[in-house]
Amino acid sequence: MKLISFVVDGRPSFGAVKDNGVVDLGARLRLEGCATLRQFLEAGRLPDAARLTASARPDHTLDKIAFAPVIPDPEKIICVGLNYRDHVAETGRTVTEKPALFARFACSQVGHLQPIVKPKVSDDFDYEGELALVIGKAGRHIQASRALDHVAGYACYNEGSIRDWQRHTSQFLSGKTFAESGSFGPWLVTTDEIPDPSKLTLQTRLNGTVVQNTTTDLLVTAIPELIAYISTICPLVPGDVIVTGTPGGVGAKRTPPLWMRPGDTVEVEISGIGVLRNTVVAGQA
Amino acid sequence: MKLISFVVDGRPSFGAVKDNGVVDLGARLRLEGCATLRQFLEAGRLPDAARLTASARPDHTLDKIAFAPVIPDPEKIICVGLNYRDHVAETGRTVTEKPALFARFACSQVGHLQPIVKPKVSDDFDYEGELALVIGKAGRHIQASRALDHVAGYACYNEGSIRDWQRHTSQFLSGKTFAESGSFGPWLVTTDEIPDPSKLTLQTRLNGTVVQNTTTDLLVTAIPELIAYISTICPLVPGDVIVTGTPGGVGAKRTPPLWMRPGDTVEVEISGIGVLRNTVVAGQA
Repeated sequence: MKLISFVVDGRPSFGAVKDNGVVDLGARLRLEGCATLRQFLEAGRLPDAARLTASARPDHTLDKIAFAPVIPDPEKIICVGLNYRDHVAETGRTVTEKPALFARFACSQVGHLQPIVKPKVSDDFDYEGELALVIGKAGRHIQASRALDHVAGYACYNEGSIRDWQRHTSQFLSGKTFAESGSFGPWLVTTDEIPDPSKLTLQTRLNGTVVQNTTTDLLVTAIPELIAYISTICPLVPGDVIVTGTPGGVGAKRTPPLWMRPGDTVEVEISGIGVLRNTVVAGQA
Repeated sequence: MKLISFVVDGRPSFGAVKDNGVVDLGARLRLEGCATLRQFLEAGRLPDAARLTASARPDHTLDKIAFAPVIPDPEKIICVGLNYRDHVAETGRTVTEKPALFARFACSQVGHLQPIVKPKVSDDFDYEGELALVIGKAGRHIQASRALDHVAGYACYNEGSIRDWQRHTSQFLSGKTFAESGSFGPWLVTTDEIPDPSKLTLQTRLNGTVVQNTTTDLLVTAIPELIAYISTICPLVPGDVIVTGTPGGVGAKRTPPLWMRPGDTVEVEISGIGVLRNTVVAGQA
């Protein structure tokens, strides 16, 4: 099952993809307190999604909606840096025993087919194709062996980065949370369709050229261990997003560097999920 | 004016401190969509606070409420690392031209007089007394010269840090966002009472002993420039929290290190604001 957050006629909602359209679950469940995908997960209603969708006809065709980030309003977006060996190597760093965590804020992400924004203050706008997961069940001190039970599903993430700002200091946040610089979508694929997230292929394409290509078994810290580590620090709650890291091939480490420029199209494709596609526009200020 | 977020009889609310009690503004404005201090700021109602309070009698005495973090649910908590020269020096680093930003998540903070939690996985639990500000008016690309117009007020922050986890990698987040490891309060003092946030004294005390002592004119990047820098990256919205950095004297850099232990009392006092006081308890897992 593919779940999306979207906007139709100015109204934010969420629903299930069906027959090139979407069953508007937000409209159906609004009065039950489930107007957003995050609320739907919080209410423990994910197991109802298939039943609610099976008996319904799509309310909107996909070309009539604007895709929002899979979770537009997560409590936490936790990104993992330096989590593929080829990317660690190209940065000149060494692999750390523990995962390098940093945050993005929700304002830094847009949905599938929405423009991502190169800010006026920098031209060093880089792509990072990544596998993201969304927490479905709350937990603290989660054991790795049971961690996948806490996952609602998976999506593609383009962790767009402003490299010169990322390098202003030792801390990555400044370059990682520029407004509308990243993308999260196109949809959440539930775990029944992806029982093992370590068996996926991931490819990033810039204007059709493959620039990153990996398999998710190459993650330095695998998803169950990421969930165990993070949930030792703080509770994970439904809607929380973990962005698992990018493989080698980023634009900053090429000679000459390869930056995303206004007019470019960038795609992140993950097997079993689909293609997250965005074009780049220039920020106005 | 002093504004607080609090819980009374299990109900979260916010209000204004008056005569050793609180005027419950959340109860009064709930039906107008202002049940929380963040919503009150978002609605642009801050200028009404004095009028609403002047004509009211306190609804609860302060000993009958539980203080919550000043903003329990901010969209962003942006912390500034290495922003006093004496702290930069004790860490063996050098001052950077730009501020080092990292995040905390809301689950990492508690309110005044609530226990802060030393997690079971570490004994390296350190204090960091800091001046925090809360955004009152949204903005992007804010000029430093007008930045203070976007501030609703100021509070004390204890940016409790799990030092060994902070040092797992180059990125601070892991050690900075442990559940209930930090504190934010006791209240928001509005800007009419603090026209110039660079004229304050800040002191941190552990069990009554002064361990940090500074004046806020010593910030490497001052508050107007912090707001300008951050708002170049992304929009600031009402309720956003900026935690401006800690001075020298942290426990990790003492010989031997001085850690907070269960049973300890830690206080952050800032002139014109007051004392944020918390005791330390041991986490159960």
